[in-house]
Amino acid sequence: MKSTQVLLSRRPDGEPKPTDFETVTTDLPPLEEGQVLLRVRYLSLDPYMRGRMSEVESYADPVALGDVMVGGTVCEVIESRSDHRAVGDQVLSYSGWQTHAVADARHTRRLDPDAAPVSTALGVLGMPGFTAYAGLLLLGKPQPGETVVVAAATGPVGSAVGQIARLKGARAVGIAGGPEKCRALLDELGFDAAVDHRAPDFRDRLAEAVPDGIDVYFENVGGEVARAVMRHLNLYARIPVCGLVAGYNAAGVPEGPDRLDGFMRRVLTKSLTVRGFIQSEFEKEHHGRFVEEMSRWLADGSVRYREDVTVGLDNVVEAFNGMLAGRNFGKVVVQVGD
Amino acid sequence: MKSTQVLLSRRPDGEPKPTDFETVTTDLPPLEEGQVLLRVRYLSLDPYMRGRMSEVESYADPVALGDVMVGGTVCEVIESRSDHRAVGDQVLSYSGWQTHAVADARHTRRLDPDAAPVSTALGVLGMPGFTAYAGLLLLGKPQPGETVVVAAATGPVGSAVGQIARLKGARAVGIAGGPEKCRALLDELGFDAAVDHRAPDFRDRLAEAVPDGIDVYFENVGGEVARAVMRHLNLYARIPVCGLVAGYNAAGVPEGPDRLDGFMRRVLTKSLTVRGFIQSEFEKEHHGRFVEEMSRWLADGSVRYREDVTVGLDNVVEAFNGMLAGRNFGKVVVQVGD
Repeated sequence: MKSTQVLLSRRPDGEPKPTDFETVTTDLPPLEEGQVLLRVRYLSLDPYMRGRMSEVESYADPVALGDVMVGGTVCEVIESRSDHRAVGDQVLSYSGWQTHAVADARHTRRLDPDAAPVSTALGVLGMPGFTAYAGLLLLGKPQPGETVVVAAATGPVGSAVGQIARLKGARAVGIAGGPEKCRALLDELGFDAAVDHRAPDFRDRLAEAVPDGIDVYFENVGGEVARAVMRHLNLYARIPVCGLVAGYNAAGVPEGPDRLDGFMRRVLTKSLTVRGFIQSEFEKEHHGRFVEEMSRWLADGSVRYREDVTVGLDNVVEAFNGMLAGRNFGKVVVQVGD
Repeated sequence: MKSTQVLLSRRPDGEPKPTDFETVTTDLPPLEEGQVLLRVRYLSLDPYMRGRMSEVESYADPVALGDVMVGGTVCEVIESRSDHRAVGDQVLSYSGWQTHAVADARHTRRLDPDAAPVSTALGVLGMPGFTAYAGLLLLGKPQPGETVVVAAATGPVGSAVGQIARLKGARAVGIAGGPEKCRALLDELGFDAAVDHRAPDFRDRLAEAVPDGIDVYFENVGGEVARAVMRHLNLYARIPVCGLVAGYNAAGVPEGPDRLDGFMRRVLTKSLTVRGFIQSEFEKEHHGRFVEEMSRWLADGSVRYREDVTVGLDNVVEAFNGMLAGRNFGKVVVQVGD
């Protein structure tokens, strides 16, 4: 079986360019005992991938030059040498930017297409949803009546954060780019307030949206939005940090003034808790309960989600850059095969 | 009764100058029912006082111009209109930079001069000791075999942090200014390693002192020392932040480059926990146990302390500046009266 693969051929400088990648068609090796052959249906695009393209120190090793770009995928089993997976099974795997893949069956998770659309295993029921769930509930710990702020609020993490915050009795304030997204936060996702970070009066609007200050700032973007938020943090506010998308394409250290000392002074005077995390830290203990609760919330309509689907692996780089720039609405997936 | 008082007469610009204060002699009001007249024996000098001299936002209101500078004191009761305090009692109070004071008896705590020298109520058995105890044990949570790093390590907070860390089975690495202090960390206070931040090869020495990285960085200084430490933080390291002495005299925002984004990236990739705190947050629940444990540790010699005593209220500003600049060794107190 042949697979069309997108390889990382160069470390991007700033925004990734098509020329940083190479598309090749390769013969996959024959299956060994315990393996399955997969046809990729959906590829997840996530901000963390930008880190894997670079050599800077991070929580995972970079993708080697010449290797297939990594990524979560929903696939169909088209050949099996495992007793645990049958042809036709829909599975979650980590097969990356390609059309077909060989995987150990035990590295796949079977999905139930009747429970929810299988692509949700990459979004609201997958890593982004669990990032929101674990970060908000285990680290942010919102209490009834408190104010939770999240940016990139129409994204898969942000939209789940806001909706879960409301389910816990907190006030959800979403920050997003442009009036259309802000409207959707209010009308579609049930946020209590929405603030457009592209508006010229963003800082004033934000202040109006958090009259009682901010108790939880779920940090997934960093940059200017984060700086505006900091001024409103209440005593004992919690800041789970799962991402800093605004800086992912940055090269070198930004110019001054140096804001680190001021930030640390705020940490001190407001008794803030700042906590970086990757969802995998909480997987063992909390993932089962997440799937159970989130499935129920989806079924009863108390959590909604959007997907932003790009068709065809040919368009993967453009879709990826669109996500980093915030041009998507909802979870970005590439439909690699139908 | 007259009291000689040091008033804040001007908001200092940078390092406080003698001309920012005024010394006056005032008649104290007659005692009301429930009050005591106090003769101040020891005045505590602590870094937080620099914040109270300024109008910048902090966790407590600034001292008003013309008011007596605040501060913890150990006093002798010389007149009493309270059934709960007798003439001759030694008490802890918050009487500030003056020789005599009137206080409500219920705002004083009686000290037992037989249990420990009464001045320790301002240091190892007082607010600095409890800052070390609560911050390290409740937030830093050192585990046996882990590495704990603290700066200003011969100061009252730092020296307690290191010694408590060792009592909990962790490795204590102290950072201090100059070879004499570093020697004392090893010989007198039992630290496992000491690093001189004034040495030209400070960064290399620090790296040698933490071969397994750093699991807890107890932050009380900030500045360049903190930046050197950050590189060695392990996954899931904890950073209780109780002070940032290095910047207390700073005016304005330091020049670039802007290190905030880099710091947040480290928070993310190392899953760090950064937590600002003031010891009062933990007082109600943990202070009793602290006094009990610390008294035992002092009695059996497992915790030692040093005091840096300046005689005479006339020398208070010089002593205060010496402390901010790290010229002290141990807890800084002014002996106001014998």
